Amino acid sequence: MSSPTSTIVQCLSTAPSNNEKKVLAVPGGINPALVKMEYAVRGPIVQRAEQITEQLNKKDESSSLPFDQVIYCNIGNPQSVGQQPVTFLRQVLSILVCPSLISADPSPFPSDVVGRAKDILAHSHGIGAYTASPGLPFIRDQIVKAITSRDNGIPASSDKIFLTNGASDAVKAVLQLLIRSPNDGIMIPIPQYPLYSATLTSISGAQVPYFLDEDAVKDQWSLDIDELQRSYDDAKEKGIDVRALVVINPGNPTGHVLSRDQVHGIVRFCERNNVLIMADEVYQTNVFKPSEFISFKRAVVEVGSNVELASFHSVSKGVLGECGIRAGYVEIHNMDEETRQMLYKVVSVNLCSNVLGQAAVSIMMNPPQPGDPSYELYSKEVGDIFNGLQRKSQKLSQALNTFEGVTCNTSQGAMYLFPRITVPEKAIEEAKKQGLSAPDVLYCMEMLEETGICTVPGSGFGQKEGTYHFRTTFLPPEDQMDGVVEQMRSFHHNFLQKYS
Amino acid sequence: MSSPTSTIVQCLSTAPSNNEKKVLAVPGGINPALVKMEYAVRGPIVQRAEQITEQLNKKDESSSLPFDQVIYCNIGNPQSVGQQPVTFLRQVLSILVCPSLISADPSPFPSDVVGRAKDILAHSHGIGAYTASPGLPFIRDQIVKAITSRDNGIPASSDKIFLTNGASDAVKAVLQLLIRSPNDGIMIPIPQYPLYSATLTSISGAQVPYFLDEDAVKDQWSLDIDELQRSYDDAKEKGIDVRALVVINPGNPTGHVLSRDQVHGIVRFCERNNVLIMADEVYQTNVFKPSEFISFKRAVVEVGSNVELASFHSVSKGVLGECGIRAGYVEIHNMDEETRQMLYKVVSVNLCSNVLGQAAVSIMMNPPQPGDPSYELYSKEVGDIFNGLQRKSQKLSQALNTFEGVTCNTSQGAMYLFPRITVPEKAIEEAKKQGLSAPDVLYCMEMLEETGICTVPGSGFGQKEGTYHFRTTFLPPEDQMDGVVEQMRSFHHNFLQKYS
Repeated sequence: MSSPTSTIVQCLSTAPSNNEKKVLAVPGGINPALVKMEYAVRGPIVQRAEQITEQLNKKDESSSLPFDQVIYCNIGNPQSVGQQPVTFLRQVLSILVCPSLISADPSPFPSDVVGRAKDILAHSHGIGAYTASPGLPFIRDQIVKAITSRDNGIPASSDKIFLTNGASDAVKAVLQLLIRSPNDGIMIPIPQYPLYSATLTSISGAQVPYFLDEDAVKDQWSLDIDELQRSYDDAKEKGIDVRALVVINPGNPTGHVLSRDQVHGIVRFCERNNVLIMADEVYQTNVFKPSEFISFKRAVVEVGSNVELASFHSVSKGVLGECGIRAGYVEIHNMDEETRQMLYKVVSVNLCSNVLGQAAVSIMMNPPQPGDPSYELYSKEVGDIFNGLQRKSQKLSQALNTFEGVTCNTSQGAMYLFPRITVPEKAIEEAKKQGLSAPDVLYCMEMLEETGICTVPGSGFGQKEGTYHFRTTFLPPEDQMDGVVEQMRSFHHNFLQKYS
Repeated sequence: MSSPTSTIVQCLSTAPSNNEKKVLAVPGGINPALVKMEYAVRGPIVQRAEQITEQLNKKDESSSLPFDQVIYCNIGNPQSVGQQPVTFLRQVLSILVCPSLISADPSPFPSDVVGRAKDILAHSHGIGAYTASPGLPFIRDQIVKAITSRDNGIPASSDKIFLTNGASDAVKAVLQLLIRSPNDGIMIPIPQYPLYSATLTSISGAQVPYFLDEDAVKDQWSLDIDELQRSYDDAKEKGIDVRALVVINPGNPTGHVLSRDQVHGIVRFCERNNVLIMADEVYQTNVFKPSEFISFKRAVVEVGSNVELASFHSVSKGVLGECGIRAGYVEIHNMDEETRQMLYKVVSVNLCSNVLGQAAVSIMMNPPQPGDPSYELYSKEVGDIFNGLQRKSQKLSQALNTFEGVTCNTSQGAMYLFPRITVPEKAIEEAKKQGLSAPDVLYCMEMLEETGICTVPGSGFGQKEGTYHFRTTFLPPEDQMDGVVEQMRSFHHNFLQKYS
């Protein structure tokens, strides 16, 4: 053991050291799965958008930019673009945070707000104490009641519910249980929400892609059972043990909503092939008529199947759009008791999900009822948000369909459009020259630089070779939508010109 | 592809199937690393405690039990055992949740509460929107300021700060980056907080144990550099690539606080052996005089070392004890820019940590100052909690030292005592007979059943072979502490009698 003095000398002499001394260094010194992992929703385009935002905030630098704000259409984050929180939810939560508000005189809140908060406080140690690992039993009971009602009376059970910090944590926990070796594969849609590909890469599981059918007549982006079988068989042939199927319904980024027949068909496919279903149903209340949401839980029971199911939900989406609260849950169904205990253990290492978020789930699943003092305002706010989303979706998709070489689905649900774009040969070459991973990265980066509109390249979600897309939300406020449409139109036109 | 009808028939005929059909099944069908993983803090004893709590809540069943409440001493969860939240923090947070409270007239809050909330709202899109992945820049700047002040002016940088849902998430992210193969090892103290062992097991990294010195005269549970070297050399000999050293300071479960010389010595050890430091400093404000907290960041700079460091902090501990909010952060130091970007990417997949939690970190790092309207109340509340913890720690440790065959350290910090117990031979046999993993599991389970006091067996944290311990918090309210002490004493006496 060297003396302290010699150590200091040694350390000073190596102080301006380079990477070769670091424990964590790319490449070689860092978990290669994480180096490989990609997550486009928060990738380089968003990081550039954040730089530009900082530049705009510094008045003297902002003059050089051709726009005065960044419009974030890259992510389903409604409150970042002006959507107001729902009053009832926030009032209840504020009392949970500061229970002395109960005795404020005059009370700033309606009586049902106070009643609801008291009820949650009575069934917990408040928002400052760890709860049971899967969440407060009281709130899990409320979820059970709401799921049962949603599914036409099909029963649920609170010990099959696990509250988590957003649906993402629950998805990761289930994927972790499923992947035993790089030989284990999970079927994921293409295009998909990159949480799935990113997590699979990070835990070295195999991605088994199945393609959604962009060209399907009358049901664009639908899911075809023959394609599922093709994907499954291909993987089997390669020696992959196909463990589960991820379905995102309503679809992200496609906005497609599965019909009852389709959901039943998927359940039967999974039953036949002994594949677990991971149903990402976080957009279940973002469904525009005449489409209808049919839960996989309901379908599994209706079909009489014993296929294993994990269904995910979240307060981040829907009309609440409470992304920053980070709350969601998973319901498991048809799983072994031992498996349930394993999931319990996995969530236990996180101790519990944030308790304010648990309470937000409670309100989402158990909103004010007719006759309650808050009912009218709640209904109006929720209705306005929902109708606004539908109008904005239609406006943007109709406009995109008039752009040269662009085709865009009508959104049936969720919060996104996924227009297909034709990228000129010269733009493809330019993207290569710039070392970009795909031509649609060039498209989205130039859109950001010229208009301030931040979107995500289709390549971040996966797409059929030779096709290019971008994903945009339709979340900006209605009074900005005309501007967004015109800026996109003008940018698109210029892009085609520039690279023609 | 079979017809829908034949599928239904097939499915019905297999409906009462057993485990062999399940995708997720123990063993074989579940990630074996997760099956192997153990997490004692939320293990079978706590689950039994939760059952008993439910039983107590049903009045008719409670009469059969020899106590009327479960006292949870198993976990540092102050608000679950009656610690009140700090008023200023909760008032600010309640406005963030419900900003209309700003205009409540009369205002239920002092002016600095409103000012602080407005400031956070002005630098964010509120608590309902995702933030930048590492957290709001404004709050990271406040952390930087507080760390710089804590460390006597040593600079920090906000791009080296990542806010997370509790420190646990940050610990996991860093371990994930470090472990490339089962050959990569992390040095962990024995005894240790089982987050480290559990996470390492789950990602198939090697645990490289080093033993804290329970028998050290005058400095019980101290950390000895020769023991670090022994541990490191042993691992190297086995072909393990030792990547990092975990230090928990103040210690969990030991309550030990490292001296400045010890912290410097550890930094030099890591420098010499090219080992990254993971400094779990979540109890940094739970330090009882004359002990003093010296951060590893400060020591690394004082020593002039270029050793890589990740330092973790949390709002769950300290005097705030806001466990349920789930908020913490990691500061990285001396890491490559590429490594920083990898960590950024890893936290990005979670989108961001919950924003209310980020705001709680803001208040923790930037409390009211003398002259602020809330200062006096804040100081009183914080002082009362701190002094109460110290008194309770002393009372419990002094009492435990009078139990037959028990020796207990005086806690220098953190929230725990880790008394060593002598377990009679017959109890060891009984534990074996019951198939328990260790004799101290029997001890803690019987303590729970007889007194309602829930503790964690020493075996859950690791201990020298042939020694037995349990971990208890000293968090119950002061008016309950005499009762806790007497119940523990009586149980301990009976246990020794029963198995003598």
